Amino acid sequence: MNRPVPPELLSRLYTMTAFGPTSANCQPLRLVFVACEQAKRRLIPMMAEGNRKKTHQAPITAILAYDLRFYEHLPRLYPHQPDAPFWFSSSELVAREAAVKNSSLQAGYFIMAARALGLDCGPMGGFDAEAIAREFFPNMPYEINLVCNLGYGDKSQLHRRLPRLSFQEACSILL
Amino acid sequence: MNRPVPPELLSRLYTMTAFGPTSANCQPLRLVFVACEQAKRRLIPMMAEGNRKKTHQAPITAILAYDLRFYEHLPRLYPHQPDAPFWFSSSELVAREAAVKNSSLQAGYFIMAARALGLDCGPMGGFDAEAIAREFFPNMPYEINLVCNLGYGDKSQLHRRLPRLSFQEACSILL
Repeated sequence: MNRPVPPELLSRLYTMTAFGPTSANCQPLRLVFVACEQAKRRLIPMMAEGNRKKTHQAPITAILAYDLRFYEHLPRLYPHQPDAPFWFSSSELVAREAAVKNSSLQAGYFIMAARALGLDCGPMGGFDAEAIAREFFPNMPYEINLVCNLGYGDKSQLHRRLPRLSFQEACSILL
Repeated sequence: MNRPVPPELLSRLYTMTAFGPTSANCQPLRLVFVACEQAKRRLIPMMAEGNRKKTHQAPITAILAYDLRFYEHLPRLYPHQPDAPFWFSSSELVAREAAVKNSSLQAGYFIMAARALGLDCGPMGGFDAEAIAREFFPNMPYEINLVCNLGYGDKSQLHRRLPRLSFQEACSILL
């Protein structure tokens, strides 16, 4: 719907997201909130065809990225373990896997927090990740995880929820 | 604390977790809830030293895994796109990245849902992932993402919350 999202809600959304736990408190998630026509026009051609119209319509589009050099903040974020940066910095593969995993965890907190704040969320995986990183994070060691539309949806336009795996299919309890 | 977690809470926890969105509704997360002494005894030696005592004390320890062949369920989970399984099945690398990302997203929903149900959560990344997969998912194409203790914590034993990156450090708004 054509109802704006107040910018102060975005800082509440981030604060709630950031409370969630990450490995060694590493917090690799980085966010750009695209909230103006001009920036939207830069983003939309990098979205997959099927994601363009909804990205155009959403009042805010959040770009969720991860910082491949997140470990540089660990001396402050995880001060009781002075060697924590080296758990990640010794291998690009290890750093990237931790950044992907933990920024995805944080994306889960972000989506739940947005819903808790009354926003509707449209997370999207279809886009040109390299182009978005170059355009919105130039010369930064960032990669794109997810792009997520935020706004107030129109319930009359909802699709039916897709099926979920049952507890029996996805879980077991060892009693 | 030494207060048990009723098994019916675990199925509510899974139901809430499963509502969260995933790419192409792929839901790669698979869970084992370790709820008895005998299974705990199999798990504990595979946990990192620093995680053993708390894993022993927690009434439930959840093993969060991902199914590398999650795409076999897509004809049912994403029926309007008959080619969806092939988006993932053509490359092991693509399938694994989607499984890691989406099971981490679901792990974020899981942690938020557990907190919403009044449980305390102790997610842990320190363990022998291959040994746990062999022991708890023998002959299955599953890998371990996270191990998470569940229970009712003792507030007097809490550490102080570690610092979080500020909005200014992690976010920007294009207005």
